[in-house]
Amino acid sequence: MNRTPSFNLSCKSGKARAGTLNLRHGQVETPVFMPVGTQATVKTVRNSDLREDGWNIILGNTYHLYLRPGLELLEQAGGLHSFMNWERNILTDSGGFQLFSLSALRKVTEEGYNFQSHIDGSRHILTPEKVIEAQMVFGSDVMMVLDECLEQPSGEKVTEDSVGLTLRWAERARKLYPGNGQAMFGIVQGGGFPHLREKCARELVEMNFDGYAIGGVAVGEERLMMELAVKSCIDILPENRPRYLMGVGKPEDLIDFVAMGVDMFDCVVPTRNARGACFFVPEGRINIRNAKYRNDFRPVQEDCDCFVCTNHTRAYLRHLFVAKEWLAPIFATLHNLRYFARLTEQLREAIRKNRFENTSQELLKKMGKLDNC
Amino acid sequence: MNRTPSFNLSCKSGKARAGTLNLRHGQVETPVFMPVGTQATVKTVRNSDLREDGWNIILGNTYHLYLRPGLELLEQAGGLHSFMNWERNILTDSGGFQLFSLSALRKVTEEGYNFQSHIDGSRHILTPEKVIEAQMVFGSDVMMVLDECLEQPSGEKVTEDSVGLTLRWAERARKLYPGNGQAMFGIVQGGGFPHLREKCARELVEMNFDGYAIGGVAVGEERLMMELAVKSCIDILPENRPRYLMGVGKPEDLIDFVAMGVDMFDCVVPTRNARGACFFVPEGRINIRNAKYRNDFRPVQEDCDCFVCTNHTRAYLRHLFVAKEWLAPIFATLHNLRYFARLTEQLREAIRKNRFENTSQELLKKMGKLDNC
Repeated sequence: MNRTPSFNLSCKSGKARAGTLNLRHGQVETPVFMPVGTQATVKTVRNSDLREDGWNIILGNTYHLYLRPGLELLEQAGGLHSFMNWERNILTDSGGFQLFSLSALRKVTEEGYNFQSHIDGSRHILTPEKVIEAQMVFGSDVMMVLDECLEQPSGEKVTEDSVGLTLRWAERARKLYPGNGQAMFGIVQGGGFPHLREKCARELVEMNFDGYAIGGVAVGEERLMMELAVKSCIDILPENRPRYLMGVGKPEDLIDFVAMGVDMFDCVVPTRNARGACFFVPEGRINIRNAKYRNDFRPVQEDCDCFVCTNHTRAYLRHLFVAKEWLAPIFATLHNLRYFARLTEQLREAIRKNRFENTSQELLKKMGKLDNC
Repeated sequence: MNRTPSFNLSCKSGKARAGTLNLRHGQVETPVFMPVGTQATVKTVRNSDLREDGWNIILGNTYHLYLRPGLELLEQAGGLHSFMNWERNILTDSGGFQLFSLSALRKVTEEGYNFQSHIDGSRHILTPEKVIEAQMVFGSDVMMVLDECLEQPSGEKVTEDSVGLTLRWAERARKLYPGNGQAMFGIVQGGGFPHLREKCARELVEMNFDGYAIGGVAVGEERLMMELAVKSCIDILPENRPRYLMGVGKPEDLIDFVAMGVDMFDCVVPTRNARGACFFVPEGRINIRNAKYRNDFRPVQEDCDCFVCTNHTRAYLRHLFVAKEWLAPIFATLHNLRYFARLTEQLREAIRKNRFENTSQELLKKMGKLDNC
């Protein structure tokens, strides 16, 4: 359990990288996508489903878990793995993004975040230290340091000050490095300013984290800014550390950012979009509520090996969504997660065989031919 | 596929009966409980879950299926089994109960039910013939004839007239007996009047159905009336035909009515109550939202072999319900169905070993010690 976290880069195809992340609860092959398990559950699916799909790491949200079920209960349970009965890896975010997007009346000070719970309005303070301590209680395999997430666009001065704060917070978090096998990642901020992203990345690298995330993207900003954020810092990040693009993304995003050298992703799209009747397929996305699927007795995706595609038709799935049945989001989630699992497997395979450029072009060319719900 | 439906009574313990129902999609051991799959799905669970629990028959609702997805689509799909990919038995009710409880502006004539859809307000007519024709399209293994369900209490004259109509409808349905292996059951009505129940049963038996249901119970009437309804007709029903008590019931009801000679049951309690955080256990029911389960790290039921009890704690299940997570009703349903499967297995076993009286008293004595949500 307590081996030092490490990352072995095994090969590259262009800038795309394939490697192995060694964590407390086993190895993770990269590039990897992490399903989001906000409140100690990946919505609608069982642990056994995740295991059968081969997921070796999922994401939990510190902000949510801190508020509910709370640290006391998680400590009594022996940590998050035990509480939710998940014996593989868990990365927990720092709460920075949720503090930015969810909590009311939040106030950022040098000390940390002073905020009001979105659940019951109770007041809390989360500091860089408390966020790490919480993740120690969770027993997270990868802990993220607290960062400040800014709305986009923000001005240069505001962003510069914010990067300063994020760096000071990172340093405070780094001091709590546990040495028990729990990995700790820093988060590069800097908004749309390449020189601030660069500065942030350089200073974080000096602090020597187990991995580096690129944050403050996927907050509604332009796609171009997201690319800029990655490009401006990716070459500064050390080769022998994993790079994690937070909150990204759609299948086409995974392909594009793997091409730039990103190793890790997380996003709610496969699960959240599923609940909106959106199924991911190699040709794009289909909204199964569409009337044209009414008597379509084919599976959602002919060559998919998921439970849904091997058991049920589009017509049946449409019926479940139209009739507002519980199985509808369950089945859509099962399929979408399997789609993401297979897509990332394809990307890893392409890198290992050094034909990432070809494979990614083929995949992208095929996409976007359908609904795009 | 096309063997004639039949029922083999294998043994009795007091009035409790154990037998085998031979249907188009395989054998069903009785006494049997049928999970309710209203809209071509047992809410929240997968076919694979039902198979793993050993369910060999589920129930579908003609009223719901007729309105949505509709006969045209079900015909194109090759029937209900194929549409929902369920290769075991399906009993479909006649719609009588839903026409009584759900549809607006319904009007009963000699012809049948004239009613307005609860979904879109469209007008429809369902006659005894159309209800059988619909169930032929479904390919139901057991078809129920159309009956009139009365609100309780109803007066003697009203009930007598209604029984007359139900009998004339039964005769019209009986004329359409398909002879393709689909079984057809008559339904005994008669409200709280033993002589009307008797009369109805006698005349139905003369029509020679494959089985007999006792209907018009579980419509909010007193428990005593339900017992009266069963007692007044059960001895009139032939030994070599299954007896089905519609819409019943809770675990204690199953025990009581098996004791009176009932063979088949269906009820929404394991599935509907599950969605309300209610778990069935040998000691009664527990509402998992209760604060006392907050840090209770035991399974819901120590000796239960279901997925939930072998994987998760009460504390985790409570968290899922409190956090309004999708997995909450899924897990509660999985457990409750398994509880009902094991309970009916216990009852069958007790009858086969001719110790039903003892076993049922032990089971009943144990029940009711908990919450009773």
